Amino acid sequence: MKFIRFGEAGREKPGVIDADGSIRDLSGHVLDLAGSELDPASLAALGKIDPASLPLVSGNPRIGPCVAGTGKFICIGLNYSDHAAETGATVPPEPIIFMKATSAIVGPNDDVLIPRGSEKTDWEVELGVVIGKTAKYVSEDEALDYVAGYCTAHDVSERAFQTERHGQWTKGKSCDTFGPIGPWLVTKDEVPDPQNLPMWLTVNGQTMQNGSTKTMVYGVKYLVSYLSQFMSLQPGDVISTGTPPGVGMGLKPPRYLKAGDVVELGIEGLGTQKQTFVADA
Amino acid sequence: MKFIRFGEAGREKPGVIDADGSIRDLSGHVLDLAGSELDPASLAALGKIDPASLPLVSGNPRIGPCVAGTGKFICIGLNYSDHAAETGATVPPEPIIFMKATSAIVGPNDDVLIPRGSEKTDWEVELGVVIGKTAKYVSEDEALDYVAGYCTAHDVSERAFQTERHGQWTKGKSCDTFGPIGPWLVTKDEVPDPQNLPMWLTVNGQTMQNGSTKTMVYGVKYLVSYLSQFMSLQPGDVISTGTPPGVGMGLKPPRYLKAGDVVELGIEGLGTQKQTFVADA
Repeated sequence: MKFIRFGEAGREKPGVIDADGSIRDLSGHVLDLAGSELDPASLAALGKIDPASLPLVSGNPRIGPCVAGTGKFICIGLNYSDHAAETGATVPPEPIIFMKATSAIVGPNDDVLIPRGSEKTDWEVELGVVIGKTAKYVSEDEALDYVAGYCTAHDVSERAFQTERHGQWTKGKSCDTFGPIGPWLVTKDEVPDPQNLPMWLTVNGQTMQNGSTKTMVYGVKYLVSYLSQFMSLQPGDVISTGTPPGVGMGLKPPRYLKAGDVVELGIEGLGTQKQTFVADA
Repeated sequence: MKFIRFGEAGREKPGVIDADGSIRDLSGHVLDLAGSELDPASLAALGKIDPASLPLVSGNPRIGPCVAGTGKFICIGLNYSDHAAETGATVPPEPIIFMKATSAIVGPNDDVLIPRGSEKTDWEVELGVVIGKTAKYVSEDEALDYVAGYCTAHDVSERAFQTERHGQWTKGKSCDTFGPIGPWLVTKDEVPDPQNLPMWLTVNGQTMQNGSTKTMVYGVKYLVSYLSQFMSLQPGDVISTGTPPGVGMGLKPPRYLKAGDVVELGIEGLGTQKQTFVADA
């Protein structure tokens, strides 16, 4: 199934995408799509509902983040060998983990705020993995049992904050609106191979990233298992798994986002995002 | 006031400390002590309640984390000049920010789990700052308007995970139970000078840290203002402001925690913590 959350920010309702691509209102069955609704039993119960039996949502509502109440937004750095090369880094011998503040999470088409003083706001299309069941010390073989599904994620980054302002990437990754996720939470049964998903990103219509999860260094199974050795992963947590080549800082000369720029991005089967970048007030 | 949360993990009730140091049950007035209850108006309303009028809590209940629903657990690295020196680092020209997973938060006297494979689990007593009101782009002068109060915090760290496992400190800071906070959330009116608080930590009764927030490089006002330039701080967020000298990795030879070790720590006026370290199952 493709779950969606729609409506005003902070008051989203849960929905599901029907066979025609329309939104059906799921709020008669579940209050919200938070971690507590993402365990295998709850997902199986929701999966038995015929979308055609649900109220059709009319108009063109705002789309919210595809999961509510995320406790951890964990990102993986330099996880595509060719992206590592373009940033001048080498592929790390173990995954690089950093956290994005959960307060950065927004809907897939919400405006992204360029923070005050920013001159190096950059883009990164990424595969997001949504946890469905608490995972601690899990093996690679069983890792996918703990995954509810996948989403398109945009790991917006301020490169000067990240790398020139001293110590730890969090500073350039956590700005408000720097974490659009969605439009859909696509359950894993609809994603037979998370390591074979074409992904792309354009800036003002020009293709900047055009890759595939095929070239990920550490795949989804490995990452879930690896992370669970350091901390428990909990329902609703999101892992953003790194970006393929083509980010602004890797261009010669580098190119960064300015107010008015429009970024569109997508992953095959997981839906697309479109953001206008605006100066923060 | 000194707020406290008591009872079984995940089902804590809110309380307040009375003139005798006993816990009074505040659950008739507020459901829990989460961010939404920490704004100045709500705190002022709670401050008008006479603790003696509240039900006395009998027995010796478990104490929970002093604030519920923390969205961000932001830590400051190398923020005491003498601690920086003992780790072989220099004081950074800007604060170092890293995130601890909020899933690491536990009560002040809960057991701390030494993660599987850990050989370098270390201690760090820190002043915790609890945000009461959303702060974004705030000046140093107004920074304390956004602070609800203070608490004792223990930034438990796994040094090999943090510094030898490649990339970003989060990996060694986010293990389950690595973030005891409390026992109390002490409102800021009871802490006239957060930059003059003696703090200490013992391991099995032996003093290891004995410092004061006086020697902090970047003080509370500066940190709240600084962080708010990079991300909005929200009610219930906790900032752990760095540790004075005396951590295990700074000893010659280094000393790390083993199962059975007991760590006690405290900050003047903010209460004490006592944890037994146990091997994670």
